[in-house]
Amino acid sequence: MTDSLGDWRRTHYSKRISPELSGEKVTVMGWIHEIRDLGGIIFVLLRDRDGLIQITAPSKKITKELLEEIRKLRRESVIAVKGTVQDSSKAPGGFEIIPAEVKLLNESKLPLPLDTTEKVHAEIDTRLDSRYVDLRRASVSAIFKIKSRMLHSVRSFFEEGEFIEINTPKLGASATEGGTELFPITYFEREAFLSQSPQLYKQMMMASGLDKVYEIAQIFRAEEHDTLRHLNEAISIDAEASFCNHEDMMNVLEGLVRTAIKNVREQCEDELKILGVDLEVPEAPFERVDYDDVVDIVNSKGVNMKYGEDLSRAAEKAIGEKMDDYYFITGWPTDIKPFYVMPDSENPGKSCAFDLMYKDLEISSGAQRLHIHDILVERIKKQGLNPASFERYLAAFEYGMPPHAGWGLGAERFTMCITGAKNVRETVLFPRDRRRLTP
Amino acid sequence: MTDSLGDWRRTHYSKRISPELSGEKVTVMGWIHEIRDLGGIIFVLLRDRDGLIQITAPSKKITKELLEEIRKLRRESVIAVKGTVQDSSKAPGGFEIIPAEVKLLNESKLPLPLDTTEKVHAEIDTRLDSRYVDLRRASVSAIFKIKSRMLHSVRSFFEEGEFIEINTPKLGASATEGGTELFPITYFEREAFLSQSPQLYKQMMMASGLDKVYEIAQIFRAEEHDTLRHLNEAISIDAEASFCNHEDMMNVLEGLVRTAIKNVREQCEDELKILGVDLEVPEAPFERVDYDDVVDIVNSKGVNMKYGEDLSRAAEKAIGEKMDDYYFITGWPTDIKPFYVMPDSENPGKSCAFDLMYKDLEISSGAQRLHIHDILVERIKKQGLNPASFERYLAAFEYGMPPHAGWGLGAERFTMCITGAKNVRETVLFPRDRRRLTP
Repeated sequence: MTDSLGDWRRTHYSKRISPELSGEKVTVMGWIHEIRDLGGIIFVLLRDRDGLIQITAPSKKITKELLEEIRKLRRESVIAVKGTVQDSSKAPGGFEIIPAEVKLLNESKLPLPLDTTEKVHAEIDTRLDSRYVDLRRASVSAIFKIKSRMLHSVRSFFEEGEFIEINTPKLGASATEGGTELFPITYFEREAFLSQSPQLYKQMMMASGLDKVYEIAQIFRAEEHDTLRHLNEAISIDAEASFCNHEDMMNVLEGLVRTAIKNVREQCEDELKILGVDLEVPEAPFERVDYDDVVDIVNSKGVNMKYGEDLSRAAEKAIGEKMDDYYFITGWPTDIKPFYVMPDSENPGKSCAFDLMYKDLEISSGAQRLHIHDILVERIKKQGLNPASFERYLAAFEYGMPPHAGWGLGAERFTMCITGAKNVRETVLFPRDRRRLTP
Repeated sequence: MTDSLGDWRRTHYSKRISPELSGEKVTVMGWIHEIRDLGGIIFVLLRDRDGLIQITAPSKKITKELLEEIRKLRRESVIAVKGTVQDSSKAPGGFEIIPAEVKLLNESKLPLPLDTTEKVHAEIDTRLDSRYVDLRRASVSAIFKIKSRMLHSVRSFFEEGEFIEINTPKLGASATEGGTELFPITYFEREAFLSQSPQLYKQMMMASGLDKVYEIAQIFRAEEHDTLRHLNEAISIDAEASFCNHEDMMNVLEGLVRTAIKNVREQCEDELKILGVDLEVPEAPFERVDYDDVVDIVNSKGVNMKYGEDLSRAAEKAIGEKMDDYYFITGWPTDIKPFYVMPDSENPGKSCAFDLMYKDLEISSGAQRLHIHDILVERIKKQGLNPASFERYLAAFEYGMPPHAGWGLGAERFTMCITGAKNVRETVLFPRDRRRLTP
């Protein structure tokens, strides 16, 4: 039998209790991380979101009934404890709690699907199958606390920059960028597709006069990739602004990256420590390396790359070795970038597109966009696509489309950069990939 | 031929210019809202995100070439103007700009698909087909500026309350709540579904120890409804917290609603004025009306409603007439609420579920949840569902699930409450409904 919560409420998270509170009555709640029964004294390590609290139950100080009640408790059961704080140099945080009353709120089945104390290694698949238990490990929840902080910092950065948040549709009648990597859906009696990017919608918003917009939302890509860097469902941080060029938007991106890292560094000290990450705010400006130089560097490292090719995985690794952590690749050939990218007016074979890299990982792509209707139609045709498929998008360019530029930043890849995670799945609560659709 | 932006950048949005800047050189950019050519003097009303700026071009003060350049401009073309601010009691904002240089950044085709000056009425379908032009109307963009401000206020409220942002998957192998109102998708060689709610995932997160979580993301509902209140794709504001009950989470919801309204009231004064909305922060606590009393009130208004029925549209209208703007309906019969809702321990026929209403509109549903595995399995069976379909969800209840409660709030419906919009489509950039999948 379990107890109901009744009118008990937590008074303190673990991190809010310190030896200075000695003598105070508190109510704490959480999971039994460990329990040690030494007969005349029982130690319960209670775990909450922020850490551990030692509950010390000595037979001399508590009733026999309470001692027996505590003795019956098992690992990972959920309890609430009312008691008195007492300083204790041996306990975590320098304090312990002498219990006065305990409630058993729910029991845990044993054994657990995986160990919560991080003493036993678990494979990623086992962990993802029981993500709710996996997240009880401090090194796992730390990643998601950092991701949450990063996302909030990013939004605050946009708000301070007077960007307006938009929500673009994830269901559409047609392919976004004409690609084949789309998930088809049945929309009542019609076929529809899941959005692979808010690209065309955020551009249409530039014609609306909203001027500067951002969106942080799911994107869906039916790519067959099965790597440590790809997901079929991810969160994209998208920005688009009018009356500016790609250089301006590179500066915005650089500012956003630095601000988010600064905030995580300041506000997630405990989590970074748990992960063993010594996070530095990268210096501005990030280095800019031209695509032509990238080709030279990659070849000089013994990796074959022809001018006009996209970066292979080997090429990414080669350039990553040479550069600082964060750097831009600019001057991409127009032909390997999407149709909406503005060619360089002085040298139309090159474009106003950029990628932001972190070591060997591409984390963002952006560009100044073509804003002149007729030139855009020409580019669509030149890329072998049919302008008729882009009718609604193209119409927005006919009624006063301002010059504009923007980018998309992968939230999970950026989380990898900050947390040091090597597998993108570590940065998603419930990853969706080629093989995984559950839980 | 159009001009390129070059090194021109906007120095001021319209709202940042005032007569006090008289004599200063500024660069402004936007769309030509109106143009009046009186021969010796031309007035151009330039529109940017925040309002209108009068560009006054008198032949006496500017070159003949510039005057001719300005004379050629057409409505809704995109221009940039460098000039000098001059006070003028007759112009909007009490100032005008005497141009020194003008760039034509892009031209607009005429006639427009709809009028941007709000003098001519346009049907909602015409407007949605050309949303990028529709949004140039101040009364339309005001709604999305308010929605953006509301969403940011909501997130800040959650952050201050130490909620952690989570991102749950929108693609899944099985139905979320066992309902039939799901969009099927083809996930490689498998069938999958779009998420109709993060409900089961946010509950699983309670077992993880993240303690208090929120998510603001798309939900997808394959409902056949074609009303002014339903969408097939919407934004849901979801919250879930452990070690608390439904009363606590009603207080959180009440605080969130009041905070968001307070922020919109303070920070969107111009937008509210444009919409003619006199926004008041509703007083706390919101009234709580028991379902039993709702049945009586509805019947007393001549609308037939039996005990145990959900609210019909007519019943919503009847109760909405009687109550204050914001109120909770509590004490719902257990049988008409989802399986995960906690029955009232004193009276199990009634539940710990609540709806938040605004007049006759349901904007949020929430409840204390069942957290005991075996009771939950019983409820699933009793509702005619198969526990095996909820295997992964139920597993989370076996390894230490704390008591928890939560709710979901419809972002668009809440935006309707704040802006006075009568059709939910007014609050979505690109609505998706039974008939509409484009643009």
